[in-house]
Amino acid sequence: MSRTGHIAVIGLGPGGAHQVTPEASAAVAAATWFYGYGPYVDRLELRPDQTKVASDNREEISRAQAALEKAAEGERVAVVSGGDPGVFAMAAAVCEAIEAGPAEWRDIEVTIVPGVTAMLAVAARAGAPLGHDFCAISLSDNLKPWETIEKRLNAAASAGFVIALYNPISKARPWQLGKAFELLAKILPVTTPVIFGRAAGRPDEKIVATPLGEADANQADMATCVIIGSAETRVIERGQQPALVYSPRFLKPGA
Amino acid sequence: MSRTGHIAVIGLGPGGAHQVTPEASAAVAAATWFYGYGPYVDRLELRPDQTKVASDNREEISRAQAALEKAAEGERVAVVSGGDPGVFAMAAAVCEAIEAGPAEWRDIEVTIVPGVTAMLAVAARAGAPLGHDFCAISLSDNLKPWETIEKRLNAAASAGFVIALYNPISKARPWQLGKAFELLAKILPVTTPVIFGRAAGRPDEKIVATPLGEADANQADMATCVIIGSAETRVIERGQQPALVYSPRFLKPGA
Repeated sequence: MSRTGHIAVIGLGPGGAHQVTPEASAAVAAATWFYGYGPYVDRLELRPDQTKVASDNREEISRAQAALEKAAEGERVAVVSGGDPGVFAMAAAVCEAIEAGPAEWRDIEVTIVPGVTAMLAVAARAGAPLGHDFCAISLSDNLKPWETIEKRLNAAASAGFVIALYNPISKARPWQLGKAFELLAKILPVTTPVIFGRAAGRPDEKIVATPLGEADANQADMATCVIIGSAETRVIERGQQPALVYSPRFLKPGA
Repeated sequence: MSRTGHIAVIGLGPGGAHQVTPEASAAVAAATWFYGYGPYVDRLELRPDQTKVASDNREEISRAQAALEKAAEGERVAVVSGGDPGVFAMAAAVCEAIEAGPAEWRDIEVTIVPGVTAMLAVAARAGAPLGHDFCAISLSDNLKPWETIEKRLNAAASAGFVIALYNPISKARPWQLGKAFELLAKILPVTTPVIFGRAAGRPDEKIVATPLGEADANQADMATCVIIGSAETRVIERGQQPALVYSPRFLKPGA
């Protein structure tokens, strides 16, 4: 029997230990080598026999390759992502690396462990803004042309989807979110609720709702998930209690 | 001080106990009254001092109202959803009921506990089909006109989104999924991977991938989440290991 290794691509959820599934915790306990973006591997409390290999934010493919090389040696390897590993995260990078890599990498056992992705955690804090049809778009034009992003924003808003934006802004991509708001304001009412959700479920959580007409890209940073409502999305003011932002399940004929 | 009640809308994840977050388990432990669709409340192992109120599938609003009435009495109430409560589930129904209900319901403390929604669990079993921009559409035309659904399917496929379909089929809605495949086959290559994911993470799990040109709506039932790739979505055949279906993060200019 050959020494077939194993790679688990694990979603650690939005940040708090209370949002890590037992399945993800068990997958962490079962692995020996851990690959991931620094802040994600830093969340792990590992045993002395477990080794962390942290890497930088934009090195997904080389990280996936390093993890697969280690798994091909017969080791039990974990690649960790924040949120869900299948949403703008490491699961696709590992698949890309396998497809382009040496034939023996196809023999590696692959397990992907889902997690609570950022938009779900942010939505839960705000109410139910993803209550009807919605989409998730990465605003990063490192991986696709900006024209494609504009086309998708236009299509989604025009067809009535709520839009969750991942990777909204970074030092290297300072103008894209402002441009997205500008474009969406031509399609959606200026009163459309926009939610800036940062660190949902963590001690430094910050969730802010604002009308699209007043949305300022500077309210976001790299760790923010931005949810833009549809024309149907509503705000319930509640006096003492925080407002609830929600998208009704119902859509009347003709709307 | 008034006896302000509390309502927690809790996502129990796709089905297995290993995919319920500690936060959701703690919220279940803290509540006294439980409202939900029968199969979801049946997942709960409750103490003698905790009471289940199960209701039928299509009674979301009356269920939300009953839960809010109980919370307004000062009780700690839980409304449970499978998956994530904010995705085609009870969080929006509770918001709708609060908005339309008596003023005192706005004083009720509301907590929404996110969970792993079906598309994430199904995607994890298949590879990384949601690896680039994607959308989630409920195929139920009970709550919105079929024309809206067609418009959204067209817009999403034309703009290159991967599409996750919730509520794809039921006895009362037998033709909608077949119609959706027909419509999408006019836009997407017949080779586009389609994943039928049922009971992901449960003992009776069934995940099947098939090309769009051969997708048969009868492969789905009420509990299936159907993921339809984009033109970019790929399949990696792996001999001994199961194939991986994934959507690459990269999109070349002009694609």
